[in-house]
Amino acid sequence: MSTMRAVQVVGYHRPLEMTEVPAPEPTGPLDVVVRVGGAGVCRTDLHILEGQWEAKSGVSLPYTIGHENAGWVEAVGSAVTNVQEGDKVILHPLMTCGLCRACRSGDDVHCESSHFPGIDTNGGYAEKLLTTARSVVKIADSLEPAGVAALADAGLTAYHACAKAARRLRPGDRCVVIGAGGLGHIGVQVLAAMTAAEVVVVDRNPAAVELAVQMGAHHGVVADGTQVEQVLELTGGHGAEVVVDFVGEGGATAEGVRMLRRAGDYLVVGYGENIDVPTIDIISTEISFVGNLVGSYTDLTELMVLAARGAVTLHTTRYALDDFATAVADLDAGRVRGRAILVP
Amino acid sequence: MSTMRAVQVVGYHRPLEMTEVPAPEPTGPLDVVVRVGGAGVCRTDLHILEGQWEAKSGVSLPYTIGHENAGWVEAVGSAVTNVQEGDKVILHPLMTCGLCRACRSGDDVHCESSHFPGIDTNGGYAEKLLTTARSVVKIADSLEPAGVAALADAGLTAYHACAKAARRLRPGDRCVVIGAGGLGHIGVQVLAAMTAAEVVVVDRNPAAVELAVQMGAHHGVVADGTQVEQVLELTGGHGAEVVVDFVGEGGATAEGVRMLRRAGDYLVVGYGENIDVPTIDIISTEISFVGNLVGSYTDLTELMVLAARGAVTLHTTRYALDDFATAVADLDAGRVRGRAILVP
Amino acid sequence: MSTMRAVQVVGYHRPLEMTEVPAPEPTGPLDVVVRVGGAGVCRTDLHILEGQWEAKSGVSLPYTIGHENAGWVEAVGSAVTNVQEGDKVILHPLMTCGLCRACRSGDDVHCESSHFPGIDTNGGYAEKLLTTARSVVKIADSLEPAGVAALADAGLTAYHACAKAARRLRPGDRCVVIGAGGLGHIGVQVLAAMTAAEVVVVDRNPAAVELAVQMGAHHGVVADGTQVEQVLELTGGHGAEVVVDFVGEGGATAEGVRMLRRAGDYLVVGYGENIDVPTIDIISTEISFVGNLVGSYTDLTELMVLAARGAVTLHTTRYALDDFATAVADLDAGRVRGRAILVP
Amino acid sequence: MSTMRAVQVVGYHRPLEMTEVPAPEPTGPLDVVVRVGGAGVCRTDLHILEGQWEAKSGVSLPYTIGHENAGWVEAVGSAVTNVQEGDKVILHPLMTCGLCRACRSGDDVHCESSHFPGIDTNGGYAEKLLTTARSVVKIADSLEPAGVAALADAGLTAYHACAKAARRLRPGDRCVVIGAGGLGHIGVQVLAAMTAAEVVVVDRNPAAVELAVQMGAHHGVVADGTQVEQVLELTGGHGAEVVVDFVGEGGATAEGVRMLRRAGDYLVVGYGENIDVPTIDIISTEISFVGNLVGSYTDLTELMVLAARGAVTLHTTRYALDDFATAVADLDAGRVRGRAILVP
Repeated sequence: MSTMRAVQVVGYHRPLEMTEVPAPEPTGPLDVVVRVGGAGVCRTDLHILEGQWEAKSGVSLPYTIGHENAGWVEAVGSAVTNVQEGDKVILHPLMTCGLCRACRSGDDVHCESSHFPGIDTNGGYAEKLLTTARSVVKIADSLEPAGVAALADAGLTAYHACAKAARRLRPGDRCVVIGAGGLGHIGVQVLAAMTAAEVVVVDRNPAAVELAVQMGAHHGVVADGTQVEQVLELTGGHGAEVVVDFVGEGGATAEGVRMLRRAGDYLVVGYGENIDVPTIDIISTEISFVGNLVGSYTDLTELMVLAARGAVTLHTTRYALDDFATAVADLDAGRVRGRAILVP
Repeated sequence: MSTMRAVQVVGYHRPLEMTEVPAPEPTGPLDVVVRVGGAGVCRTDLHILEGQWEAKSGVSLPYTIGHENAGWVEAVGSAVTNVQEGDKVILHPLMTCGLCRACRSGDDVHCESSHFPGIDTNGGYAEKLLTTARSVVKIADSLEPAGVAALADAGLTAYHACAKAARRLRPGDRCVVIGAGGLGHIGVQVLAAMTAAEVVVVDRNPAAVELAVQMGAHHGVVADGTQVEQVLELTGGHGAEVVVDFVGEGGATAEGVRMLRRAGDYLVVGYGENIDVPTIDIISTEISFVGNLVGSYTDLTELMVLAARGAVTLHTTRYALDDFATAVADLDAGRVRGRAILVP
Repeated sequence: MSTMRAVQVVGYHRPLEMTEVPAPEPTGPLDVVVRVGGAGVCRTDLHILEGQWEAKSGVSLPYTIGHENAGWVEAVGSAVTNVQEGDKVILHPLMTCGLCRACRSGDDVHCESSHFPGIDTNGGYAEKLLTTARSVVKIADSLEPAGVAALADAGLTAYHACAKAARRLRPGDRCVVIGAGGLGHIGVQVLAAMTAAEVVVVDRNPAAVELAVQMGAHHGVVADGTQVEQVLELTGGHGAEVVVDFVGEGGATAEGVRMLRRAGDYLVVGYGENIDVPTIDIISTEISFVGNLVGSYTDLTELMVLAARGAVTLHTTRYALDDFATAVADLDAGRVRGRAILVP
Repeated sequence: MSTMRAVQVVGYHRPLEMTEVPAPEPTGPLDVVVRVGGAGVCRTDLHILEGQWEAKSGVSLPYTIGHENAGWVEAVGSAVTNVQEGDKVILHPLMTCGLCRACRSGDDVHCESSHFPGIDTNGGYAEKLLTTARSVVKIADSLEPAGVAALADAGLTAYHACAKAARRLRPGDRCVVIGAGGLGHIGVQVLAAMTAAEVVVVDRNPAAVELAVQMGAHHGVVADGTQVEQVLELTGGHGAEVVVDFVGEGGATAEGVRMLRRAGDYLVVGYGENIDVPTIDIISTEISFVGNLVGSYTDLTELMVLAARGAVTLHTTRYALDDFATAVADLDAGRVRGRAILVP
C-alpha cells in the first residue's frame, strides 16, 4: 500500500501535524480519488483547532483537515461515468447520498446523510483525497485547481445567495450587499454577471468598498454611521428590493432591515447575532428573511462557468503543503491577501 | 342633497355615535357608491377607539368607521366598466392608485398612495359608502353581502398567506397552522381547497382545534406544552415544510420555528412579539420568514370563488345598524360566535 | 443459481412465451431485486410485439417484457439505504444514472443514460425483476403492489402533466381535460386533489365522461361536434386557462387550441398528429404548447401519497402470470375494464 | 380650439396626407396630452396603407397613424399622479382599462378592452397625441424621445421575449437568437445585460451577424444551410436551452426546433409560417413553444432602465415630420439604416 503526506488534526488547541498516512484508493463503485492541486485555508480551520466543531462534527482524531479542494482525478470506481483519470476537478464540499428526498429534488445540500471532508472525515490538506462521483465538477482547461479551490465553499456560498437574489431582481431594482470581504467580492461579481440590477456595497473598510466597486458594484457606501441614510438616498427613499447580508453580526441585521424596501428579501448569509424584528414590522411591510447555506452541486457547476470566463475571480496567496503552519499562522494574523491556498 | 345614517368615531376613548351625514355620490369617473349590506365588526375597531391608530392613520374626527364591507352598487362614475348599478359586491379594504409600480405589477397592496376606508377615511358602518371601481369585486348570486363582509379583511389575510403556502406545498408535505381562531379556520379551509398537503392545526383551545379538524385539517394538536413534540412526531421528526402562524405572540414564534423543517417557510401573519432567531440557525437550516399582509384585489377575487362554491364558510352573528353599540360591546366581551356583522 | 418464470418477447409478430430464466441477484451496490406483485399490461406492450419499438429500443431478443411494475424488495446491494428487504415498492419506469446534469437537478426523466425495463432491458412479466435504488418508491401499508402497478407509467404521466397544470391554476380558472380514458381519469382525480380550479372533461364516449364527472370533474362535455362551443360557453366565451390533451390525434389538437384562453397553456400528453398552428395565432394570443413525458421519481413519490389516501384510484382486472396470453388478448380485443394486471 | 399638423391615413392604397386637425386636450381625468418628440416609422405602417389591418382594426378613416411614440407631457387630467407637465415620456403602445382581470394581474397586454393608437385610434405622426396616465413611462434625463421612440413597440417585444428567456437561463446554458435584424439586435443586448448564458445568433446576413456579435452575442452563425449543425456543434450536440425566434417564416421554425435541447423553450416572436411539429416529438423531448406579444407596461419601464444606462442602444435615422413621405418611401425601399424616426 502506498502512502502520502497529510496534515492532520491531532488534538484540539494543538498545532496541526504533518504525517505519513496510507494513500486512498477507490473501493466503492462511485469512489473518486483526487490528487490535490489546491486546498483552501479557511477561518473555519482555525475554529476546528479551537474545538468549536468538536461536538458538532463528532469526528475521531487524528484526521486530515481541509474542506476547499480541487485537483486532478487519479482513480475512479467502477460505476463512475462523469469523470475519468486526468480530469481537472473542483470538489463540492459535501458528499451526499443521492437517494434521499432532498437529493432527488436537486437540493442535495439538505441531504439527510451527507459527509463533509475536512470537517467530519478526511479532507484536502494532503497529497490525495477520497471523494465520490457525486462531488466532483470538471473545470475548464483555462482554470487551475489552486486558482479555484477557495470557490468550493466560501465562493459557493456567495454564489448561492446572489444567484437566488438574481432570480427576483429586475432592471431598475437595487441589491444591497453588506460586507465587502471575500464573500462580498464574489457576490458582487456574481450579481454583475447575472442581473441588470444596481448593486450597492456597504462595508466599514473604504479600501474594500473601493475594490468592490472596481469589481462591478454601482455604488459603494462606507459604513460610517450614516450607511442606512446613504442607502435610502441611493434608493429614492424606498430601500432596496434585496439585501444580501454577508456579515450577520455587530448590528448589521438591524441596520440591514432598514435598508430593505417593502416586499423585499433579506438574504441571511453571515451569522453571529440574532434576527430580532417585531412581527408587526414583518407583516406590515411583507418582507422576508431567507437563510442561505452553501450552494448545491448544480450551483457549483454554474459558478465554474462564471470562473472559466473570468467573470468571477479571486486573489490567492499560495503556500507549499509543507508550509501549512505558516499559512495557518498568516491567516490567523490577518497577513493573507485574498485566500490562502496550500499547493501539494 | 340626501342624507344617511352613519356610525362615527367622535373622539378616542369615547363611544361611537350614530349621526345623520350627507349620503355619498359619485363625483370622480371611477367612483362607486355602494349601499352597505354588511359591515364586519372587527377587533381593530376596538383598537381604533382606544386611540391605537390615531397617529398612524392621521384621520380627522369625526369619521365613519368600518373596514370590512359588502353591499350593492348604487351609482357609478362615468369611467366605471367593471360593475353596474345593482351588482352585489365585496370591497377590497384598500382604495389603490392604479398607477404606481406596485399597482402596475398586480401587487396593489403595496400601492404607494392608497386609502383605507374605516381607518383613514369614511368606512362602512353606514347606509352607504363611497369607494372606487378598483376596490369592488362582484360576488356570485348565491352569496349575500352580510355573509361575506367579514372575508374582506380578516378572511383575505388568511387567504393570502395560505394561497402562498399552497404554491409550494406538494402531496406528502405538511403545513402547520398555528391558531384556530377566525383566521385559522379560514386558512384551514383554503389549504384544504387548494393543496393535497397534510394540514396540522395547533391551538390552546380544544374546541377550536376540533372545529378546525371538521373544517378540513388532518390533525389537531392541542397546545398543552407538548405541541412541538406532537408536531415533530406527526412529521416523522423532520417538522413541516410550511408553518402559517396566525398568532405571533405569547411565545408562538419560538415554538413555531421548532416545528419547521429544513428549507421550510415560516409565514408570519399574527403579530405581537418579535421574531428572535440566531442567524446561525437560519442559515444552517435555510429556513425563511415571510411576512403576510392583507391579500391583493386578485386574491379577493379568488377567495370569492371559493366562497361561492361553499369551500370557505364563516359563521356570522348579525346586528341591525342601530344596534352597533351592542355589537361592539359583545365583541369586546367575547360574546360573539364567529364574526359580528352590522346589517343596515 | 436459482431460476424463475418470465414472459419474454422471442420475436416480433410472434406471441410472448413463458420460459424459465435465471433469477436476478444484486451484484452492484445500488442493485435492488424486487419480487413482482403486479405488472401492468399496457398498449405499449402490444406495440412492442408489432415491432414498433424494435429500432428505437435496440433491445436484443429474447428479453422479458413489462414496464409498469410493483412488488416487494427481496434483496439489496451494499450501498442501498432507501429501502430494505420486505419493503413494498412501486418502480419508476426509468433506471437513471444519478450523475448527469438532468439527474442532479431532480429532472431525472431527461437523464442522459437511462434504461427502461420492459422496453430496452428485462421487465416485470416475471417472478422477479432487477432494478436500482434510484427507481424504487416505498408505498404505504394500505396499498397493494397489484393495485398501484399501473400507476407506474400511465398514471405517472397523467400526474406529471396535471400537477404542472395545478401549479398555475388559481380559483376561478378552468382546466379542460381532453380524453376521459385511463390517463384522463387519473388526471381528473389529480386536478381535483391539487387545485381549486374548475375541471371540464371532454370525450366522445358519454359513459367515460359520466365516470370522469363522478371522479371529480365539474363539467362533462360529450364530443359530438359542438364540443368547442360547449367549452366556450362554460368558460364565459374566453376558453380555459389550461388544456390538458390526453388524445393528441384525430383532430383533437386543432379543437383543443380553440378551447384555450389568451395566455393559456396547452399541455400535450397524447400523441399521434402534429401541432399545426399559425405562428401569428401563437404570438397574438401568447399561448404556449408544453410537452409532457412520464413524471420524475419525485412525481411518483407524490402520486403514491395521493393513492395512499384514496385520492387517486384505478380499476384493475387481475390475471395470474400464467394467464399472460389471455390478458394480452383481452387488452387487444378491448375486453379489459380498467387496467389489466399480471399477478405472479 | 388650437390646431396642429398630423399625418393621416385617408384611404387604403393611397398616400398618407398631412392635414391640420384640432389639437387634443385632456378631457378625462386620466388623460395625458403628449407633445411628440419622436414617432417610429415601422413596417406595420406600410401594411396599414396596404389595407392589411382594415378589417382587424375597424378604424374609421381618416385617422392619424404612428404607434411608436415618445415626447414631452404637455397637459394632464385631474387624476394623473404619475407624470406632470414637462416630463419626458415614452408611450406604451396600448391604452389599457386597468380594471379587467388581466390588468389587475399586471398582465395588461391581455387587457379585455384596450386601444392601440396609430392602429385603431389616432397615433403619433403629429405634433401632439392624446394618451392616458396608464400608458406613459418617464424616461431618464439622459435619453431623448427621438432616440427611444422605436423601442416602444419593436424593442418592447424583443425585451419581453428575452427577459422571459433570461428568467430560466443559468450560467452554462445557451440561448439561440434566430434573426439579427432590429428585434434580434435588441434581443442580444437584453440577454447580454440580464443573463450569464451564452448567446448564439443566427442570420443569413453576415454583416448583421457580425454586428450582433459586437453587441454581445458570444457566437455568430451565418445561415448558409449548415446552421443547425453549427448550432449543435456549439452546444455539445445537445442544442440550446432556449431558442428565441424573431423570424418565424421561411422554414425558420422547423430548423429552430432542431436547435433546441430536451426540455427546452422555443420562444415564438416572428410570424408568418405555421409551427408544424409532431406531438410525439413534443412529448418525447418535453419541449415547449411559447408565444410572445409586445411587453407589458412594467416591461417598458425595465427596458427604459437598460436604455438609460446604455445597455440597449438603437441606430436611428431622423426625418422632419414634413418629410414623412420620404421616410415612408425610404423604409419601403430598404434605404433606412436602423429605424426611421419622424421628429415633429
